[in-house]
Amino acid sequence: MEVYLDNGNTTIVPREVVEAMTPFFNEKGYGHPAMIHKPGREALEALEKSREIIGRSINASPEEIVFTSGGTEANNMALKGVAHANKHRGKHIVASKIEHESVLRVLEQLKTEGFKVSYLDVDGEGFVDPNQLEEKITADTILVSVMYVNHEIGTIEPIKEISDVLKSFNHKIYLHTDAAAAYTKVPIDVEKTGIDLLTLSSHKVHGPKGVGALFIRENVEFSPLFQGAISNTFRRPGLENIPGIVGFSKAVELAFEGFEEKTSYMRRLRDKLINGLMSIPYTLLNGPKGHLRSPGNVNVSFLFVEAESIVVMLDSMNIYVSSGSACATRTMEASPTLLAIGRSLEETHGSIMFGLSRYNKEEEINFVLEKISQVVEKLRKISPVKPS
Amino acid sequence: MEVYLDNGNTTIVPREVVEAMTPFFNEKGYGHPAMIHKPGREALEALEKSREIIGRSINASPEEIVFTSGGTEANNMALKGVAHANKHRGKHIVASKIEHESVLRVLEQLKTEGFKVSYLDVDGEGFVDPNQLEEKITADTILVSVMYVNHEIGTIEPIKEISDVLKSFNHKIYLHTDAAAAYTKVPIDVEKTGIDLLTLSSHKVHGPKGVGALFIRENVEFSPLFQGAISNTFRRPGLENIPGIVGFSKAVELAFEGFEEKTSYMRRLRDKLINGLMSIPYTLLNGPKGHLRSPGNVNVSFLFVEAESIVVMLDSMNIYVSSGSACATRTMEASPTLLAIGRSLEETHGSIMFGLSRYNKEEEINFVLEKISQVVEKLRKISPVKPS
Repeated sequence: MEVYLDNGNTTIVPREVVEAMTPFFNEKGYGHPAMIHKPGREALEALEKSREIIGRSINASPEEIVFTSGGTEANNMALKGVAHANKHRGKHIVASKIEHESVLRVLEQLKTEGFKVSYLDVDGEGFVDPNQLEEKITADTILVSVMYVNHEIGTIEPIKEISDVLKSFNHKIYLHTDAAAAYTKVPIDVEKTGIDLLTLSSHKVHGPKGVGALFIRENVEFSPLFQGAISNTFRRPGLENIPGIVGFSKAVELAFEGFEEKTSYMRRLRDKLINGLMSIPYTLLNGPKGHLRSPGNVNVSFLFVEAESIVVMLDSMNIYVSSGSACATRTMEASPTLLAIGRSLEETHGSIMFGLSRYNKEEEINFVLEKISQVVEKLRKISPVKPS
Repeated sequence: MEVYLDNGNTTIVPREVVEAMTPFFNEKGYGHPAMIHKPGREALEALEKSREIIGRSINASPEEIVFTSGGTEANNMALKGVAHANKHRGKHIVASKIEHESVLRVLEQLKTEGFKVSYLDVDGEGFVDPNQLEEKITADTILVSVMYVNHEIGTIEPIKEISDVLKSFNHKIYLHTDAAAAYTKVPIDVEKTGIDLLTLSSHKVHGPKGVGALFIRENVEFSPLFQGAISNTFRRPGLENIPGIVGFSKAVELAFEGFEEKTSYMRRLRDKLINGLMSIPYTLLNGPKGHLRSPGNVNVSFLFVEAESIVVMLDSMNIYVSSGSACATRTMEASPTLLAIGRSLEETHGSIMFGLSRYNKEEEINFVLEKISQVVEKLRKISPVKPS
């Protein structure tokens, strides 16, 4: 048995999605969508249909959807786009401490350009406090960035409450939300929540890599990240990745067919996995339990073991998980999210992230639970650090 | 018969390339290449192999290749990356007047940031003059951007001579070359030509859309365009589009198998098409003849007709061509390239671009020549403007 449980980092593209994309490579719509010939018109039609599907899925209009090369570009585009176009009104930005690196590092860049950034703490389960947000806002604040769901510990942030805080001020403060980890796992309605900019990523939702989208509300003052040939939107020039966009929208369609059923199923697998893991001694759950946790996320710290060793041993058993966030893996830095919820350095070192998808099976969870308790037990026997 | 002759704007992805990509969606290498589990390691292996293929094709080392979402991103990255990192040395940039819009518009953006840009004229066939370049260089010049091949009229620029001019100065002037229209049509050697940054695009060379690459010579002072999670290179954060990159490198491999034969074949088709078109009265060839023209490009102006009408009528006969550059189509502006080579506004209005590929057949050219002379004759009969 081969068990892929790293869906928080990236997902498998199912057959139906690949089949939806494939004709666009050489059978139809292979032309440039700005061209008036048949292969160009077909490309434009596919592009517009995809924009409609993505828009509808978050209650936005198609014109508010801009396709990007992924979540990283969308986050760069959102933050720099608002910051650069609104700096005449103020240069203060607020963000949570547990944002994805493609938000945190863009903010570092904006600081070198003279912007000021205030960071919001999170509690022991990763929740931002809307009251603290209110205190941080000044007359200079132009933008707030808080993620919908944390990518490492699955915390679903109180976006509506955050948006209500921003609306209570007299000047416009844009709300950007990175929904890469939330999309197709929790319902998102940009109207009800008052989000101004929303980042989406295809490869996290069983679509192809290299595609993402940014929702930009109609009236947002915005500077584009790229300049170039205007194809179909001035907000992101360059030829659109038509097969990739078709794959992305197909994946989204599939995810929202029977959404309740699919997410309930994932929640059941998630809780089964959490309960099994927590029965292993000296194990801490990172992030909340229940409905305020993303259906696809499990993250635990096994004390007295190194996460890397667990990943390697599980890999040899054809079980694929990751240690903390993909993003921090190359740099070997401790996860800022885990530190922010109060975990010690030692506790972060034993952290394993399990990303579930609706394609995982119950017997896979049983298999993983059986193997991982053996692995942890074995590693603890040879560990120089022991429970006291 | 269906004839696709818009390969200058974008190309068909052949079956072999699609087959090379497909397993990476869900069979192997579907993981995150920063992860140490099997699907991650396979992804990293594919990424490194692709980087090697692209590097070798231009005589660069794999570490100097950064994958992007396409030519537009690569051009933005190159120009802004060098400008921002070198502004302490000077803020002057030189570029030709016939660069692609993803160069010209980035330069407009850099002007708003305090950079100065000088533009190089071209002669009646689109050639830049290295002597004029020498005159434009000042102590403040940090960057020169001249394309390898013009995307509209196929002119192959004297890149080696341009590079020699830059080397004759005492301070470092980086040479960026947009090779989107040149790649796989003319041989490129970044060592021999002394290019510092080179833009490549996948969808112009029978690879998938949404992928490109930027060659950045090892010692170039450079600021990244994006910030984010560092996956495999700090120069472009974010998860790599593995299937797209695999497709791109497969397309490049195919193009360079029998390169001489393939380009000679295209040159033969090109010249057959040019000769046939020139036998239609009142027709002007835009760009040079012979070996200094890209093997894939034909561009002519039919006087006393509107190009759009030709495109529409040919489309109804299943022949797909474009009027001028894809990039200018939506905006309906006259092509800056055609104006730069001295064409009148009226002459630009009748310009048709034919993009050939090695997949085109001789009988397709015969078919197109037969149909287009009928179409031009018919349109001229109803045209209010007539030859005097």
